[in-house]
Order: sequence, then C-alpha cells, then structure tokens
Amino acid sequence: MSVTLCECFARDGLQHETVEVPTGTKVKLIDAMTAAGFPRIEVTSYSHPGRVPVFGDASAVLAKIKRRGGIGYKATCPNERAVSRALEDFALGHGATEISFLASATESHTERNLRTTRDGQWVRIEEMSRLAGDRFTIVGVLSVALGCPFEGSVDPGRVVEDAARFAEVGATLLTVGDTVGTGTPSTVRHLFRRLIDEVPGITPVAHFHDTRGTGLANCMAAFDAGCTHFDSAFGGVGGHPTQISYGQGRTGNVATEDLVSLLEAEGVATGIDLDAMMRLSECCENALGRQLDSKVARAGLLPAAA
Amino acid sequence: MSVTLCECFARDGLQHETVEVPTGTKVKLIDAMTAAGFPRIEVTSYSHPGRVPVFGDASAVLAKIKRRGGIGYKATCPNERAVSRALEDFALGHGATEISFLASATESHTERNLRTTRDGQWVRIEEMSRLAGDRFTIVGVLSVALGCPFEGSVDPGRVVEDAARFAEVGATLLTVGDTVGTGTPSTVRHLFRRLIDEVPGITPVAHFHDTRGTGLANCMAAFDAGCTHFDSAFGGVGGHPTQISYGQGRTGNVATEDLVSLLEAEGVATGIDLDAMMRLSECCENALGRQLDSKVARAGLLPAAA
Repeated sequence: MSVTLCECFARDGLQHETVEVPTGTKVKLIDAMTAAGFPRIEVTSYSHPGRVPVFGDASAVLAKIKRRGGIGYKATCPNERAVSRALEDFALGHGATEISFLASATESHTERNLRTTRDGQWVRIEEMSRLAGDRFTIVGVLSVALGCPFEGSVDPGRVVEDAARFAEVGATLLTVGDTVGTGTPSTVRHLFRRLIDEVPGITPVAHFHDTRGTGLANCMAAFDAGCTHFDSAFGGVGGHPTQISYGQGRTGNVATEDLVSLLEAEGVATGIDLDAMMRLSECCENALGRQLDSKVARAGLLPAAA
Repeated sequence: MSVTLCECFARDGLQHETVEVPTGTKVKLIDAMTAAGFPRIEVTSYSHPGRVPVFGDASAVLAKIKRRGGIGYKATCPNERAVSRALEDFALGHGATEISFLASATESHTERNLRTTRDGQWVRIEEMSRLAGDRFTIVGVLSVALGCPFEGSVDPGRVVEDAARFAEVGATLLTVGDTVGTGTPSTVRHLFRRLIDEVPGITPVAHFHDTRGTGLANCMAAFDAGCTHFDSAFGGVGGHPTQISYGQGRTGNVATEDLVSLLEAEGVATGIDLDAMMRLSECCENALGRQLDSKVARAGLLPAAA
C-alpha cells in the first residue's frame, strides 16, 4: 500500500502567517521537501501581490527551486489573471506543473470567501480552465466539503456534483477541504466512498483541518475508504482564512510529521525519508521562529511497521 | 450505541502537576463531573502521602464528594497499605466504589515504574485482591500494553494473558494503557479484538495517551473493535510518570472534551451533558491556571449527529 502526499507549508502554511519568510528560505525549504521525497509540493500562489504580499515572489520561487522529474509543483490560481501569470512562467520554462482552482460547496461560503455566487464561480473556473489549456495538471479545490460555518452540514451529493463538474473542466485531482474541521470519521468515510464510486474520473485528495483534534482520525477514515492522496503541512500550520469569522481556535492543517509517521507505522508507504522529514520539521520551525504543532516533532516518530 | 467514560482529571490528571489544587476545588470539580453525567470518575489515589503529596487528601476528598448511585468512584491503590486505607474509608461509609491495581506488560517497565519483577508484582496484586475482598469493583491497569519505551513492541498475547490473570484475581475491568502513545489504529484494533474474543470475563478500557497525536484515531479504532469503555481527562492533562525518561514531548491523556464531542457527533451516546462538560472544561483550566490542550475547548463542539 502506498499514498501520495502533498506538502502545503510553503503556500497554505504561509498564507496567513505574519512572520515574513524570505524567498531564499522558501526555496531552501522546498528544495529540502523535494530531496526528502515529497511527491507533490504546494509551492506558492498567484494571488494579487498587493492583497497577499507573502506570495509576491511566486515567480521568483518557481524560477529558483531545484526540480525533480515526476514531482508535482503546485501553484494556486484564484482568478484569470493568476492563470495568465502561470502561463507566463510556463512559457519562461519555470512554470508550476499543477495549478489549482477554488470553489466552495455552499453559497454562503462562496459569497464570504470568493465574493461571488456558486454559479459565478463556476463560470470563472471554466474560463480559467480554457485559458490554462493542457499545460498543467488541474487541481479542483472544494472548500467546506464536510461542513460549512454558515450552513452547517453539507450534502455529500452536492460534493459529488461539484467533483463531476471539476472533472468536466479537466481537473484530475479534487482537494476535498474540511475547512472548519467538522468532518468525522463516518462522514469522511461516506463522502470518500461516494466520490471514488461515483466520480472515477477525478482522484479525491483529503485536505483536513485539525480544528477539533479529529485530523488524523479523519485521514485514517479516508484511507479506509480508498483515498490515496493527502494534504498536510509541517507543524500543522495554515488552515482557513482568518479574515472570515469561523469561531475561535487554531484551525491548522494536519501536521505532516504526525500524518507521515502514522501512515508509515501502519505500513503505508509514503516514499518520504523520515530522517529528512524530521530535519525539515526543525527548519520550518526555525523559518517561523516558533514551536509549531506537530506532536511527533516533540515526541519522536512512531515505531516502524513490523 | 453507547459507551462508558471514566474522567481521569482528578487523579491521573493531577498526579504530575506542580500546581497545588485545594481539596475544596477537587471536590467541586468531581461534584460537577457527577452532575454532568460522567458514569465513572477517577477520584484520587491512596499513594503514600509523603511520596505523592497531591493525594494526601484522598480520604477527605472521598468523604466530601456528593455521590450519585450507579456512578463509579475510583481510587488507585499502588500497594497493600493503600488497600488497607481504602478499606478504612469503606468502613467509615465513604469508600471508593472502584479500586485499581497496576501491572506493566514488560519486565523493564515493571522494574523502572514499580521497582519489582512482573512475578513480584503479580504476587502483590493477588495479596491486594485478597485484602480487598468483594467490597469494590476491581480495575486492573496494564501499562505499556501497546508498546514499551524500553522493549519496543509488546506481544498482544502477553496482554491477553495479563487480562486473564487480572480476571482471575477478580478484576472486571482492564485499563489498557498506551503509556507512551505508540499504539496505532491497527495495533489497537487487533489487541482489542483479541481481548474481547479471548477474555470475555473482563471488559477492556481504552486508556490512550496522545503523545504522537493518535489518541482520537486510536479511540475510534478501539470502538470499531467493540470497545465500550474509555478513559480521558479534561484538557488532555496527565499521562505517564515524568520521573521515567521516555523521551520528550507532552504525553497527556486523550482530552475528554475532544473525545466526547467526537463520539456524540458519531451518534455514540456518552450520557454526558455537553454544555456542562464545556463549563467543566473551563473550571479545570481555572484550577490549573493555564490553557489546557483540548481543541474542542477552543473551537467549540462538533455539530450534533444527524
């Protein structure tokens, strides 16, 4: 058994950090992720540099990282302008290999997070997809797929429809976001079984937030349901946009160290060099200048699978 | 579906705390646990008051708490002297209803933690059991049942043998301790299935530490395997003895708030009043004068089961 991880520290992790991380440090961290064996790495975002200054160096980071063949280097694209920039970098020979487009499973969250309607966002996604052509792996990202802070529970049928819609516009991966950490093992298992059964053209990726401590339990439930792709971030950083009020609490991603350690202990191959991962964990803490939230970073790895 | 929780804040939680909690505060917290509907409460320990001063008030706490019928009030008994004290309190009409005896699944851990051999400890347990007679529910506690810091992995067959041995000396509950947090969903599932199948005379209790972030995932695995009894502590406090070097890291119990919230969200009845639990969570933080490690305490409860 093996799974494919996407390390999200450099984008999702940094998006809402107040600490400034220099371009050179980002490049070093991403190069170390490549060397450690992460098969997919979320590198940056083509957000408007005025609005999200932390990614003002998107093209510079993509130009400077040392790449390995077969590894996915992802950049998020919030709009058509972002796709144009991705295309420019592609033309210059240092493009992302994956770009992601964002939708939300509910109207209220779409309105608050994307400032449009779901219909409006789908028109935008179709246009972005047309622009991108076949130059990139397209990753659909669906927020609040396991619960919405404004509308409560989300019909899995809606998520299945959105998955099919993403597949129609050419996405081959679907990041299933438990944005506010309200998924549970049974809702996760049910949703992932449906996605795998009903939309075979797109591979679901578990992107879970540990808001209520259920991150790892939910990852294992997704794995049980057949999920093979997981997102995580070193030290559990990142998570939902802080400008939207979702209630209190840390809402970070599942910590890469804890997820990889658990998967490997369960005999599930991640392809990641565990010693290199533990060194990277320290580098990420140094980059942010504080202790982060991985428990394995403090306690050490789980024993290897028998 | 329903499960039986044991709240361990007042004993396991306080055992290694440096903050002094007055007897009156302990009594108030335990009374609030009773009122909130916890079916089992770990109240105190008959440890030597010179060695573990925090439980010097064991008899006073047991005398002052307001009890409800059917609720288990547990006191740990490390040795024969402790059982004699439990008997004295019983004779005075304010005894514990449950007493627990401790063993370790490995020789090395027995030596370091109990300063004897496994054979020596079993002789002691037999003597304690004889002394106690039939006045109490006897709870066997088995440390390092899912991995030992000195010997590594632990043969589930050994745990099954110890469970049978505890049943022979009259124990009806077996606290299965993942002392250093090295259990994983698959090792937990395997062990609990074997215990339930092979030692029907004793009910296993999942007592898991969240050292590597796997606490909730392991609880859900135990539940899947048929486990109906769980230990937890408010704020995730407590855990293994700090005087024994197990490596770094917080090694607290599974947080009651997070476990109860998850079980209830999964449609598993705990009988606990969730609002009362959230108020108690704050009281426990106030008692220790710091923010504790429950995520639900920060983020709020998971949505109720559909």
